[in-house]
Amino acid sequence: MTDVDVVVVGAGLAGLSAARDILAAGRSALVLEARDRVGGRVLNDVTADGTVVEVGGQWIGPTQDRLDKLAHDLGVEQYPTYNEGDNVLVYRGRRTRYRGAIPKMPPHVLVSIGLGQARLDRMARDVPLHAPWAAAKAADWDSMSVETWIRRNVPTDGAKEMFRLGVTSVFSAEACDISLLHFLFYSHSGGLLDRLFNVADGAQERRFVGGSQVIATRLADRLGSDAVRLDAPVRAVAQDDDGVTVGDVRAQRVIVAVPPTLAGRIEYQPVLPAQRDQLTQRMPMGSVIKVMCVYDEPFWRADGFTGQGTSDEGPVQITFDNSPPSGPPGVLLGFIEGRAARQLGGQPRDVRRRAVVECFSRFFGPRAEHPREYIERDWSGEEWSRGCYGAFMAPGVLSQYGPALRHPCGRIHWAGTETAELWCGYMDGAVRSGERAAAEVLPLLR
Amino acid sequence: MTDVDVVVVGAGLAGLSAARDILAAGRSALVLEARDRVGGRVLNDVTADGTVVEVGGQWIGPTQDRLDKLAHDLGVEQYPTYNEGDNVLVYRGRRTRYRGAIPKMPPHVLVSIGLGQARLDRMARDVPLHAPWAAAKAADWDSMSVETWIRRNVPTDGAKEMFRLGVTSVFSAEACDISLLHFLFYSHSGGLLDRLFNVADGAQERRFVGGSQVIATRLADRLGSDAVRLDAPVRAVAQDDDGVTVGDVRAQRVIVAVPPTLAGRIEYQPVLPAQRDQLTQRMPMGSVIKVMCVYDEPFWRADGFTGQGTSDEGPVQITFDNSPPSGPPGVLLGFIEGRAARQLGGQPRDVRRRAVVECFSRFFGPRAEHPREYIERDWSGEEWSRGCYGAFMAPGVLSQYGPALRHPCGRIHWAGTETAELWCGYMDGAVRSGERAAAEVLPLLR
Repeated sequence: MTDVDVVVVGAGLAGLSAARDILAAGRSALVLEARDRVGGRVLNDVTADGTVVEVGGQWIGPTQDRLDKLAHDLGVEQYPTYNEGDNVLVYRGRRTRYRGAIPKMPPHVLVSIGLGQARLDRMARDVPLHAPWAAAKAADWDSMSVETWIRRNVPTDGAKEMFRLGVTSVFSAEACDISLLHFLFYSHSGGLLDRLFNVADGAQERRFVGGSQVIATRLADRLGSDAVRLDAPVRAVAQDDDGVTVGDVRAQRVIVAVPPTLAGRIEYQPVLPAQRDQLTQRMPMGSVIKVMCVYDEPFWRADGFTGQGTSDEGPVQITFDNSPPSGPPGVLLGFIEGRAARQLGGQPRDVRRRAVVECFSRFFGPRAEHPREYIERDWSGEEWSRGCYGAFMAPGVLSQYGPALRHPCGRIHWAGTETAELWCGYMDGAVRSGERAAAEVLPLLR
Repeated sequence: MTDVDVVVVGAGLAGLSAARDILAAGRSALVLEARDRVGGRVLNDVTADGTVVEVGGQWIGPTQDRLDKLAHDLGVEQYPTYNEGDNVLVYRGRRTRYRGAIPKMPPHVLVSIGLGQARLDRMARDVPLHAPWAAAKAADWDSMSVETWIRRNVPTDGAKEMFRLGVTSVFSAEACDISLLHFLFYSHSGGLLDRLFNVADGAQERRFVGGSQVIATRLADRLGSDAVRLDAPVRAVAQDDDGVTVGDVRAQRVIVAVPPTLAGRIEYQPVLPAQRDQLTQRMPMGSVIKVMCVYDEPFWRADGFTGQGTSDEGPVQITFDNSPPSGPPGVLLGFIEGRAARQLGGQPRDVRRRAVVECFSRFFGPRAEHPREYIERDWSGEEWSRGCYGAFMAPGVLSQYGPALRHPCGRIHWAGTETAELWCGYMDGAVRSGERAAAEVLPLLR
């Protein structure tokens, strides 16, 4: 048996951050990771020519202070997401270019987008981050899907579509899947809608030199090789009056830092309270396939484009320039999200590649037709994630089960970005959740 | 290693029915059951004086032909649910008695209940049972919660409350939790709303002599002691080109006959397709505590009551006479469902008992105040059920993931009442699902 003060399940940013704080307080910690790598939903890949690209979470933006501090402490540099030139909108089959955040759409559509967004932001501010279920209108907002709200409150078809696309791009789930209350909480948690959607002054503002996963790998290196055990899936957690047993590890406390749906598959002895188990039955992961095409050059830059595209037509409805800081090669990034990810996920790789290239060409012209490389990652198929970006809640869940999300069950404490009050669902939220869980556990240690 | 043609996971009515058909075809089968008993969500208990009462699924009604045939084959007799006299309605603090299905409520409330129910029934008929996602309005109906439909289509507060209560009494979940499409499918599956709600000509029409669990125990006895292994939880299922391995059992095929949320916790090698895993992330169980009070006599009968009560006030909003066929003792049955089950589930037993007795007294007067015994079963706390009566779907799930519900994954086949086209969620549906899975597997055996 290995004996430590705290055992941590999951070596994503949440688990690693928790372990760092436990160790920094002079206590012992061991992180058990199912995969053969650290980082969880944060993952680097490399192109044929050795360029690092991020196939998981990748950006950092304003107010993501805990992630910023962590990167800084680890010496990981940041650089701005490429954002010079015009954006592209493909709408009703027509391609237009525009500068800044407001696409060229009919004025009545723009007006109803603006009014709708202002209303959603106002409502979001009324959702307390530490207790969304205590919002004055919690029951009302949790009784409906976001889709219901859109249909009822957004008068034009074009604006309806843009809201749906916005929701899907944030949750990788459809507007019909998500509770309005959870959507409002999530939006408030990340600083309201503009911040979630945007590059400039938004959640997609900056990137990490070397790819975001270096934060996780460097952090794991700092913890030391004794503190992280790879290829160590946790299937069972037992607790008694004295401590917890996780495989061959004995500890005073355990921090479970994996997505709710994975936490719910662990066998707990004794059985967890019904409220907690039923919560994890009700927090499914979104569905997303992250796709990239590699070109000799970021040719769209020469044409005056940022590489950011938005379309009412899929399967790729959102793109970004994901080229390395050096410039070449040019990397176009797209997301296949929600329903589209479910439909294309079961198809052969070639079918997806063709569909992606077609979308990229629609945005950026014929030069996009012949990438020298295609890279993809379907997170729904990952045994140790089961979807991305994160978990969402259907109607009825947050107001009725919310309090079980962070509430410890005896010696079991819960981390993971889904438990964060600020930047829930983002890398920054993951770091915060690990820090919160460590702070929760430390005073309880003997 | 034990070698059989088919291994079945779960000895509820679904798994046992599947095994029966496999054996009847001259093939070998072994049922692995996690609990120390068969029956799953069907369970007998006994009062202090030895009276059998059902603390799980218990009734049978018209068109539940497969359950009816099974009971008949096993020599299990049926008797009518006690239904003589008046029903009780407690509404806005006032108690009224009424005969038949229509309570004494203000006429405009009754009218909007009637109109609403007729509309829901009409819509339900348009949901194809074998493929609910193919309904012409599937996307529309799956975009909203039942609560949204109620708010939009039921004009009076009283009728709204009655619809919510009706939904909760069928699903043990709140109207805000459930997709309208799933609700309509479920209602169609059971023969429309009146049939789901009623005793006379409804799903609560008859009971089984000896308690419903005798069907499962006798069926298991018929299969023989070699065919059912108790205390044998299945944590992993591996399949290869030749067959499946489940613990120390090797078989050609496996039928997984447990609720989706439990099926989703099994470790499959190789990993299941994302579509299937994400489905089981999205089929949570309802929340219900079944409660009974035992009295010397069914005293309400002498007062001219059926024992059936309905109230807008909880925690027990629905009651039935659950006395044994002999008459004494008198057993009053109540359900604590949905939100109420979540709130009371974590409380001490005494708190629940007091709340239940108070509700029973509100319905049937002071003689209900002093039961000689109190019996309860909180299904959400059961490790091998994780809730009852069954799984439901939030908005977005049935239309996007429905096809994965029954679709076999290689050598893995799916049973359980949640997979039934007829009487989904009921004992009859469980039997049907087992029979369907066996019929699916048999022609595939070498």
